Amino acid sequence: MIDTTPVIPSGRDVVRSPMVATAWRHRHLLDTDVLAWPEIALVLSGAARMAEVVTGTRERPGTLRGVGVTTLFYEASTRTRVSFEVAARLLGADVVTVAAAASSVAKGESLLDTIRTLEALGARMLVMRHATSGAPYLVAGHFGGSVLNAGDGRHAHPTQALLDLYTLWRHIGAGDLGPFLAGRKIAILGDVLHSRVARSNLWTLTAAGAEVWVCGPPTLLDGFAAWAAAGVDGGRPFRVTTDIAAAVRDADAVMALRLQRERMTAGLLPSPAEYAARYGLTRERLALAAPGALVLHPGPMNEGLEIAPDVANGPQSVVTEQVANGVAVRMAILELLDAARGRA
Amino acid sequence: MIDTTPVIPSGRDVVRSPMVATAWRHRHLLDTDVLAWPEIALVLSGAARMAEVVTGTRERPGTLRGVGVTTLFYEASTRTRVSFEVAARLLGADVVTVAAAASSVAKGESLLDTIRTLEALGARMLVMRHATSGAPYLVAGHFGGSVLNAGDGRHAHPTQALLDLYTLWRHIGAGDLGPFLAGRKIAILGDVLHSRVARSNLWTLTAAGAEVWVCGPPTLLDGFAAWAAAGVDGGRPFRVTTDIAAAVRDADAVMALRLQRERMTAGLLPSPAEYAARYGLTRERLALAAPGALVLHPGPMNEGLEIAPDVANGPQSVVTEQVANGVAVRMAILELLDAARGRA
Amino acid sequence: MIDTTPVIPSGRDVVRSPMVATAWRHRHLLDTDVLAWPEIALVLSGAARMAEVVTGTRERPGTLRGVGVTTLFYEASTRTRVSFEVAARLLGADVVTVAAAASSVAKGESLLDTIRTLEALGARMLVMRHATSGAPYLVAGHFGGSVLNAGDGRHAHPTQALLDLYTLWRHIGAGDLGPFLAGRKIAILGDVLHSRVARSNLWTLTAAGAEVWVCGPPTLLDGFAAWAAAGVDGGRPFRVTTDIAAAVRDADAVMALRLQRERMTAGLLPSPAEYAARYGLTRERLALAAPGALVLHPGPMNEGLEIAPDVANGPQSVVTEQVANGVAVRMAILELLDAARGRA
Repeated sequence: MIDTTPVIPSGRDVVRSPMVATAWRHRHLLDTDVLAWPEIALVLSGAARMAEVVTGTRERPGTLRGVGVTTLFYEASTRTRVSFEVAARLLGADVVTVAAAASSVAKGESLLDTIRTLEALGARMLVMRHATSGAPYLVAGHFGGSVLNAGDGRHAHPTQALLDLYTLWRHIGAGDLGPFLAGRKIAILGDVLHSRVARSNLWTLTAAGAEVWVCGPPTLLDGFAAWAAAGVDGGRPFRVTTDIAAAVRDADAVMALRLQRERMTAGLLPSPAEYAARYGLTRERLALAAPGALVLHPGPMNEGLEIAPDVANGPQSVVTEQVANGVAVRMAILELLDAARGRA
Repeated sequence: MIDTTPVIPSGRDVVRSPMVATAWRHRHLLDTDVLAWPEIALVLSGAARMAEVVTGTRERPGTLRGVGVTTLFYEASTRTRVSFEVAARLLGADVVTVAAAASSVAKGESLLDTIRTLEALGARMLVMRHATSGAPYLVAGHFGGSVLNAGDGRHAHPTQALLDLYTLWRHIGAGDLGPFLAGRKIAILGDVLHSRVARSNLWTLTAAGAEVWVCGPPTLLDGFAAWAAAGVDGGRPFRVTTDIAAAVRDADAVMALRLQRERMTAGLLPSPAEYAARYGLTRERLALAAPGALVLHPGPMNEGLEIAPDVANGPQSVVTEQVANGVAVRMAILELLDAARGRA
Repeated sequence: MIDTTPVIPSGRDVVRSPMVATAWRHRHLLDTDVLAWPEIALVLSGAARMAEVVTGTRERPGTLRGVGVTTLFYEASTRTRVSFEVAARLLGADVVTVAAAASSVAKGESLLDTIRTLEALGARMLVMRHATSGAPYLVAGHFGGSVLNAGDGRHAHPTQALLDLYTLWRHIGAGDLGPFLAGRKIAILGDVLHSRVARSNLWTLTAAGAEVWVCGPPTLLDGFAAWAAAGVDGGRPFRVTTDIAAAVRDADAVMALRLQRERMTAGLLPSPAEYAARYGLTRERLALAAPGALVLHPGPMNEGLEIAPDVANGPQSVVTEQVANGVAVRMAILELLDAARGRA
């Protein structure tokens, strides 16, 4: 089902060549579902180059000089917003921050009016987070530049999925630009139902060839069994279980999802203590995974709830790496989208 | 009454010459009332140059390099604040943002203490918005640099009036640096009483030679009949009416004002539905204006209230152009004020 | 007790030489208590150089180019935050602002998680303010870069103390890089108990050789008598009194502290009027000090409460100078810490 033919030759030469970037055809990044493997590979190789810019061993490229990048966050976020802003500045862009919750934008102005205003003020790339699933699609239909979805409701968080994949690639597949997770098992644990991170990851992880297991309380898996059976993209099945031991056993990587505390009061969950006992990623459970299995979390973590403190901060955790990789991955994405817009 | 002699020669040569800038004598921009026509013409021609910087066809001039520009907003605003910040950065300034509502500034520190502090921290140009009419005048008396009024209570919003005029000039008067609205009719509709936009526009539009009509419910026109009879600057009369058909008929441009929703509850207005029915700018009413009449609005728009959605987004609307022009106009103003301060 | 030997030669040659900076050994600045006099002198001489950058008579040095400086304020502040940000930018740093109160950081993420995230996002120097005394010490133990304490609870505010000392040095000791306050009397008035400014100043002022008097209502001096008797650093005694006349008499400088209004309701104080009458710095009281004695205040001032308006804005007040000096002092500190980190 999964095409494991390396669609572009792997190796450092490819990583170095800017030529392959012409394979990227998207002006917006709204979700990972439209990304074919060669496009995902472009993000990985681009991010590897950008990581050298981040660490200062490669010069800042200046490829976005004079390009207006605006962040528009209707939900508060430090991690994702700052990551995008640092990425855009390292590329030389002109960055404008609009915290919608704290601004007049929130009061009675329609989303589309706001978007038109920001475009008129010079925004060419719009990084947006919105509580409503699908909002960035609406915006993309009316915005002359590029829209980057930084999280929309429970729907999608594509740059998070790509930075998760890049983090796995650095450890498991570095150098291999084919679907490097073939034969690997990845477990995603927790509040799958409300997780835009899980949804976007299902597309990229299965595209990379992984056997994905999602696991959580039955109330937080609603609808996933049907999707799993049909398969991602109609042909890449995954596994759904409420048995955390089965999910974690022999996994090469385990991703714990953040539990929104408001789910507790919505009747979807037992008490925090019971949730932690049944579905928390503890040291004992992690011991079931493959030796040296990686631990990922999109952050911010509720330590002691969905993840035990000693796992969160243990030697197998790559949570801090994920954050650092996020800057490089977002730089690669900004550059690819900008180039695609230039060609359009 | 209106001097229609072109006080400076019109044409592209003038637009290109920085020499004429010596005619600008103001260190602050508190309102449009003190601007003689040649000064307004300098803003128009300067903005035309800056528009090329905004679109990237002219190099960023760097005329404000090393100059500290601080925005101090006691009322939330995205549009105006971002516009000023983008303008200042395009000129190379060092920009500092102070959102007074969200900062310690709000708590018990006097306005003048805040201003002294910001000046000591390097502010040379202070862009301020304040709910109290006249606040920028107080500040200007104590600030060593330039004060730019970005809206004070119901009193004035000079950069909005100048960008409105520039937008009209691009369509109606481009190239003519004389009072290009002579023989033209402009209608201003809505909550005139509380509108700093209307007040500042009355000065610039009549200076440009326009026949201005203001129109709204009688409760929102209080005091304007007397001003209209005396004339702006004691010699440029305008018209006041509650009859929207009379105001709009044969107008070359119609400006709808934002209705603050709190006016509804203050007993000044009937229901929103009734207000929209009686004073909203609809397609039918716009049809009374001259063919191709321009539709302006300072934003953000209450679509369906003071302006119908099909008019707001229709072919005659220049609302988005106004926003885009705002950056160029503010660049021109920043440069003129900075140069005047340098000469002082 | 106090070593008044000039430990480094004073004079302009020293001010000009970057060599002496190798005497600075601290990667963090958490309080002034660890600073030996030669280190304090490095800040003074460095700030004198940086003051020329601030005024534009010396080129921006670019010594922090490519260095990520992040401000993380859990308490709102305009003065201190903007001061640090302007300082960092004048040195060429990449500045990121995180207003913790207004961001997702505040919600359920631990301080250490936030710090790890900010470091992963590129922060090399972290400027933090926190309501909990000691919080920056915890952070310094986990942060790979430099931590700058911008105020923690009632504990310390080291950059404020150093800018206060620099302000005194410009007036009293300029050119002398030895302990220039030997034989001078400095009075600190007001809410000493809750004041991080007073605590950090006690270290630097006594290190500079000053005879320091602290004065306030008995409820706001709790514990200071014992410290005064033991002496700062076990060997530099100071004076504690409730008699404002005794404190101010013949002082060379008087520092009024900000009174937090919530102290009023906590039963620690009489009414505002009574507090002002008994402990406010009035013109009459200032007349007891040495002729031309300097008046300092860390701001923001409650005029009419701890300081009379005519004193706050009178000829002896150096409050605005303090703010301006803050930028230069923070530039010097940022450069010293960055260099020390580079050597570590």
